Amino acid sequence: MAELGKAVIIIGDGMGDWPVSELQDLTPAEAAVKPNLDRLAREGESGMLDPIAPGVRAGSDTAHMAMLGFDPYKYYTGRGPFEALGIGMDVQRGDVCFRVNFATVDSDLRITDRRAGRISSGTDQLAAALNGLQHDGCTFLFKESVAHRAALIIRGEGLGPFVSDADPHAEGELPHEAHGADPASQRTAEMVNWFVKKSYEILKDHPVNKARETEGKNPANIAMPRGAGGAPDLPPFAESYGFTGAMVVEVGLVKGIGKYLDMDVIDVPEASGDLNTDEIAMAKAVVDALQRHPFVLCNLKSPDVAGHDFNAKAKVETVEKLDRLVGYVMDHAGDNTYIAVTADHSTPVAVGDHTGEPVPLSIWGPHMRTDNVSQYGERPCATGSLGRITGKDLMKLLTSLAMRQKKFGA
Amino acid sequence: MAELGKAVIIIGDGMGDWPVSELQDLTPAEAAVKPNLDRLAREGESGMLDPIAPGVRAGSDTAHMAMLGFDPYKYYTGRGPFEALGIGMDVQRGDVCFRVNFATVDSDLRITDRRAGRISSGTDQLAAALNGLQHDGCTFLFKESVAHRAALIIRGEGLGPFVSDADPHAEGELPHEAHGADPASQRTAEMVNWFVKKSYEILKDHPVNKARETEGKNPANIAMPRGAGGAPDLPPFAESYGFTGAMVVEVGLVKGIGKYLDMDVIDVPEASGDLNTDEIAMAKAVVDALQRHPFVLCNLKSPDVAGHDFNAKAKVETVEKLDRLVGYVMDHAGDNTYIAVTADHSTPVAVGDHTGEPVPLSIWGPHMRTDNVSQYGERPCATGSLGRITGKDLMKLLTSLAMRQKKFGA
Repeated sequence: MAELGKAVIIIGDGMGDWPVSELQDLTPAEAAVKPNLDRLAREGESGMLDPIAPGVRAGSDTAHMAMLGFDPYKYYTGRGPFEALGIGMDVQRGDVCFRVNFATVDSDLRITDRRAGRISSGTDQLAAALNGLQHDGCTFLFKESVAHRAALIIRGEGLGPFVSDADPHAEGELPHEAHGADPASQRTAEMVNWFVKKSYEILKDHPVNKARETEGKNPANIAMPRGAGGAPDLPPFAESYGFTGAMVVEVGLVKGIGKYLDMDVIDVPEASGDLNTDEIAMAKAVVDALQRHPFVLCNLKSPDVAGHDFNAKAKVETVEKLDRLVGYVMDHAGDNTYIAVTADHSTPVAVGDHTGEPVPLSIWGPHMRTDNVSQYGERPCATGSLGRITGKDLMKLLTSLAMRQKKFGA
Repeated sequence: MAELGKAVIIIGDGMGDWPVSELQDLTPAEAAVKPNLDRLAREGESGMLDPIAPGVRAGSDTAHMAMLGFDPYKYYTGRGPFEALGIGMDVQRGDVCFRVNFATVDSDLRITDRRAGRISSGTDQLAAALNGLQHDGCTFLFKESVAHRAALIIRGEGLGPFVSDADPHAEGELPHEAHGADPASQRTAEMVNWFVKKSYEILKDHPVNKARETEGKNPANIAMPRGAGGAPDLPPFAESYGFTGAMVVEVGLVKGIGKYLDMDVIDVPEASGDLNTDEIAMAKAVVDALQRHPFVLCNLKSPDVAGHDFNAKAKVETVEKLDRLVGYVMDHAGDNTYIAVTADHSTPVAVGDHTGEPVPLSIWGPHMRTDNVSQYGERPCATGSLGRITGKDLMKLLTSLAMRQKKFGA
């Protein structure tokens, strides 16, 4: 019997893309200078991965659940609970949770910037001003995440989770009136609508925003909830697999999945979730976590940020950042470690949002049936020996290679 | 409407493998001299097959069920009932069945050889000494299979099938105490634990073992049950497909599947289930069965035996044995016969156990869309036109080519 191995999944968030004319019709991953990713592809096996299923436009949350082996169609209850738990809030049964953007509105409450200039400081003070509000028997718990991101928990009797978004997902529009799909959820919707207006009253004259306006920056003068949901009923990762796992990831949404799975969610202070993140600090955290866990999932957020910003050049640079992260892990992970590099979805710079095309995948390690792929990227990987697989297959492939999967049958 | 064709699936048991350094980083299937398999690949279509699903470590039983079109997640009840029925025992409702190894233990009952020197004769006498034992209202039915393999049926009132293995699956260990997952299964477990001790008392001084010890061979002095299960509820093959099928296979585990499916399970006395098996006798039995049935499944066990023995050279030879078997069938099967050659799982010689990597598949027959694959093996087949499919697809592909599948729709 071969020795037990270890496995790492490294995800370039939203890395999948389309050919870009300013990159000579290469995708950002194809255009990047990425010696380590190319070595990984050359020495390993490659293919294309549909995070959920062919053509399905995956979210980061649903894709990560699928790639960790937990069917999102069974377990996903909406974005909010992952965001809230992911940033360290205490989610209780009966709570309804929301992902929130700090946004900028004019005096008619018309949205002029959905991300408040990607505000990078002072959101802790803004959040504190909203946290602990009370209305009609409910308490509003509010906490900032990275940049313009935050989470809201509404706690109280008789709340339902099926609530539409207040965030209209577009600039130039007014906040939407939230609606509930049943009486309990309608009560939640009324709380949301009260909270949105209240947030503007509290934030518009807040000193942090006064200072931003003085500096010519967009004020973070409203909170826009979306992605309502109750706590998902996920089984612990270690119980599902028979070994423990860690996460080295940047954003609350993915951290939340790790926390619901009772994984070791490691905090890397240098990981900003933005284009300037410290990828080597993250790589070191991955290598360190491998001393204690046979499995680590790492997510570099910046390719998705560049995609949402329609910025091809920046996206190329984020792939080069991923390359340095992967190279460090390849060099330091130790023997008998399998490394899979892929994305959780495509965020083409031509679109600025997620699309459903498959993403490149290469798996590297000691016992690969090396194929003819010599470069990492969408089109090189499409010719590889792994063919086209789905997210739910990934942990099975890795646990088989690492000899950590129970045989089904005799 | 084209004429009705016939179809054959020929399985090299456990043939899938990893690159092996002593074979110049080829897999055993790639390294073998195999003119017939290469011709089959060259004139047919090739791809990679995941017997159950990508990355799943399949057993022979679950993989064969899936490749015959019967979902193992729905029908599989454990190994025991397939072994028992496969070797001709009468399995009844309420019985609990076990696969058993004849093993060698020292006087402390510590296992020194899990396969009793791969004992090849005299097991019928040892089995007769254990068959028919009675204890606490239960009867123990025991029968030998090939080599060190045997099966046990425990028959009595109030027995449950959810029983852990007495076989510790490792040398140097004591037999495990079997445990039941519920009160009825706990009653079965107590029967198992009684039987294991009783088997040693009966076998240790048996004349067959005395003779083996005189010859310097390991005695088969204990019976180690594992893989408890009740009878599966499989529908008949002919009812499922509208035509009859035969099996030419060597081991009880696979024969049992054929018997539960009410297939024509053909006995080939020259088929030993081991490295020395007579592959041409098996090929002749396949050709003969095709006179009476439109479908035949054939399984050559020896690649798996070589894999479990960590023996790369022997595994290459078993692929060459498979090549001769396939060549004979290609030459004698007659017109309008489609032949698929694949494996039920990988048993890498580096591991000595099943792994979850996909296995090569080539399909050959009169109307193939010939692709560019010119050699049989893991990496050549991975470039073929069939892409990456799963076991459950195989019968559909073959029944379509043979014009024996009912159209779905109009």
